[in-house]
Amino acid sequence: MSHVVKKRKLDKTHQDALYFDSYTDVTIHEEMIADYVRTNTYRTAIMRNSELIRGKVVLDVGAGTGVLSVFCAQAGARKVFAVEACSIAEQAVNIAIQNNLQDRIEVIRGTVETVDLPEKVDVIVSEWMGYALLHESMLNSVLYARDKWLKPGGLILPNKAELYIAPISDPMIEDRLRFWYTVKDQYGVDMSCMTDFAQRCIMNSEITVNFVSAEDVLSHPARFAELDLHSVTAEDLRSVKGQFKCQAFGSAAVSAFCLFFTVTFPCPDKPKTIVLSTSPFQPDTHWKQAMLYLDARVDVEQDTVVSGEVNMFPSEDSARHICISVDYTIGDQEKEKKTFSIPDWSSGPQS
Amino acid sequence: MSHVVKKRKLDKTHQDALYFDSYTDVTIHEEMIADYVRTNTYRTAIMRNSELIRGKVVLDVGAGTGVLSVFCAQAGARKVFAVEACSIAEQAVNIAIQNNLQDRIEVIRGTVETVDLPEKVDVIVSEWMGYALLHESMLNSVLYARDKWLKPGGLILPNKAELYIAPISDPMIEDRLRFWYTVKDQYGVDMSCMTDFAQRCIMNSEITVNFVSAEDVLSHPARFAELDLHSVTAEDLRSVKGQFKCQAFGSAAVSAFCLFFTVTFPCPDKPKTIVLSTSPFQPDTHWKQAMLYLDARVDVEQDTVVSGEVNMFPSEDSARHICISVDYTIGDQEKEKKTFSIPDWSSGPQS
Repeated sequence: MSHVVKKRKLDKTHQDALYFDSYTDVTIHEEMIADYVRTNTYRTAIMRNSELIRGKVVLDVGAGTGVLSVFCAQAGARKVFAVEACSIAEQAVNIAIQNNLQDRIEVIRGTVETVDLPEKVDVIVSEWMGYALLHESMLNSVLYARDKWLKPGGLILPNKAELYIAPISDPMIEDRLRFWYTVKDQYGVDMSCMTDFAQRCIMNSEITVNFVSAEDVLSHPARFAELDLHSVTAEDLRSVKGQFKCQAFGSAAVSAFCLFFTVTFPCPDKPKTIVLSTSPFQPDTHWKQAMLYLDARVDVEQDTVVSGEVNMFPSEDSARHICISVDYTIGDQEKEKKTFSIPDWSSGPQS
Repeated sequence: MSHVVKKRKLDKTHQDALYFDSYTDVTIHEEMIADYVRTNTYRTAIMRNSELIRGKVVLDVGAGTGVLSVFCAQAGARKVFAVEACSIAEQAVNIAIQNNLQDRIEVIRGTVETVDLPEKVDVIVSEWMGYALLHESMLNSVLYARDKWLKPGGLILPNKAELYIAPISDPMIEDRLRFWYTVKDQYGVDMSCMTDFAQRCIMNSEITVNFVSAEDVLSHPARFAELDLHSVTAEDLRSVKGQFKCQAFGSAAVSAFCLFFTVTFPCPDKPKTIVLSTSPFQPDTHWKQAMLYLDARVDVEQDTVVSGEVNMFPSEDSARHICISVDYTIGDQEKEKKTFSIPDWSSGPQS
């Protein structure tokens, strides 16, 4: 018997300390830089906006290793304020020097809510998106920076976020439930009565972050919310909700909803926008997709309507943790409601 | 930016509650049952000892789903007390019924330290081994049960545990450090100065649980400790230590030590014992191996001596968490000392 014990509930200050602590490890930065879709889309968006960046002042909110700050400096920014609360800021300083940009990139250690900048900025760039877009609530910091430091008419990269949902099947469920029927053949013990318990455990109320295969998506994804980063407020983020309606492609068993997001960058030339997508129909990113399991599988036929409303809101236990509530109706079944949250631990040891 | 925030430090009662809570999920039980080396070795050992089990009373400490209890009943036990503190005990009841063994398997919900049995037992069976053998400290419960409930001369399955260590190389380190040299080609940003930081993060003081490939093991593993379950005491477990001496197979860079264990079952017929091994030279188990990284790689040649002492002891923060301290000398280098602990969180979301 062997696994890692999970932990729960800490006070807010301790949560924040841990939140920033956790970005001191190299692994998360390696994962983000190695995410080619993420990093290259930001790079492309910054380069395509170089006319608006050249000679201007940029604020990078949550700069991490400062890679976006370097892109902005390479695009001609006169000054980049790279604001970063955790000790990875020390590495951002080294990287600015190594790229001979120490005169134009100023790394400022602190939270964007507390730092003092010598001037207002023309551009805000930030990679603030968490799992299911809003986990970690870093968008609040971007909005705070916008209201306090961005000049009127300034540029925000990205400037739009959209949320999508689709019903999916998950073949892993079938495999894991079938497992308990195989135990008798293997060891001579009938454990098939475990399947109900297994289903309750697997199809639980946790937001599961994992890759969804395009072939398991059972309808066109429906967009249920859009955030305009020029106008959205912290108050709006206390409940991000919207309705959806999907029609099944064909006969299948719905086992979960898949939730994902895109963010969009403005672009002066053609094409008019640049989109960073975490759709299961697009190349993989480190955000994967958010899976929300139903309590049990529900069969659908071609054109069966799956509709409802999604509401995303911060957890009461920890404002950085997202909860997702889904009211849904599948075909002529009764309306159901299930509320999901991100576990504050993850499964098993390093693998 | 997206990852799961880690958590730390809870009081003892809360730790225990979480420890038992965490076994209410099906995943860990699925992993343990699906571990064929584990489950089949127990099954074989129980069947081979059926002469000593037939008509006798067995205590299964930390029974989980009760699979070992079923094996003992199948081997002819008159009565099996399946003691389990967490709610998985309810499934053990169902499984006993489904296998028509409800008359001989009595599932008792509680910790072995608090339950009251109607009689002493002839046999104790338990699968108590954690990562690096002693993580989770469940062996203490087995020893408590032995002293309180086992008849003199009774059988303990398994009855011996042995700990091994060997120097290893880890090609993953090379890959991850080289990554920072590739960023310039990919995005035009020189991030090679990250390698020192990355090395400090990766070659840290955490016990990394992962599969070690046999070809990365740089010497014959050295046995440094042996626990005889008939005589070892809880006091002994406060410091399990021993010396080791290895000789390198050939030229290589040592990046870590690999620690693993075996447990041995007595066997009345030939071969005289049955061994459950978690060695990297044996088929994989869910325990994998425990990797202990040096601060930096050290080159060795053929026959270079790697020697020292290992000390394993419970963490001061949480008695269920193991710490491992290694004093070591590699060739003619100065003696070094590094102390490792199991992180109370694990890396990233489900994958």
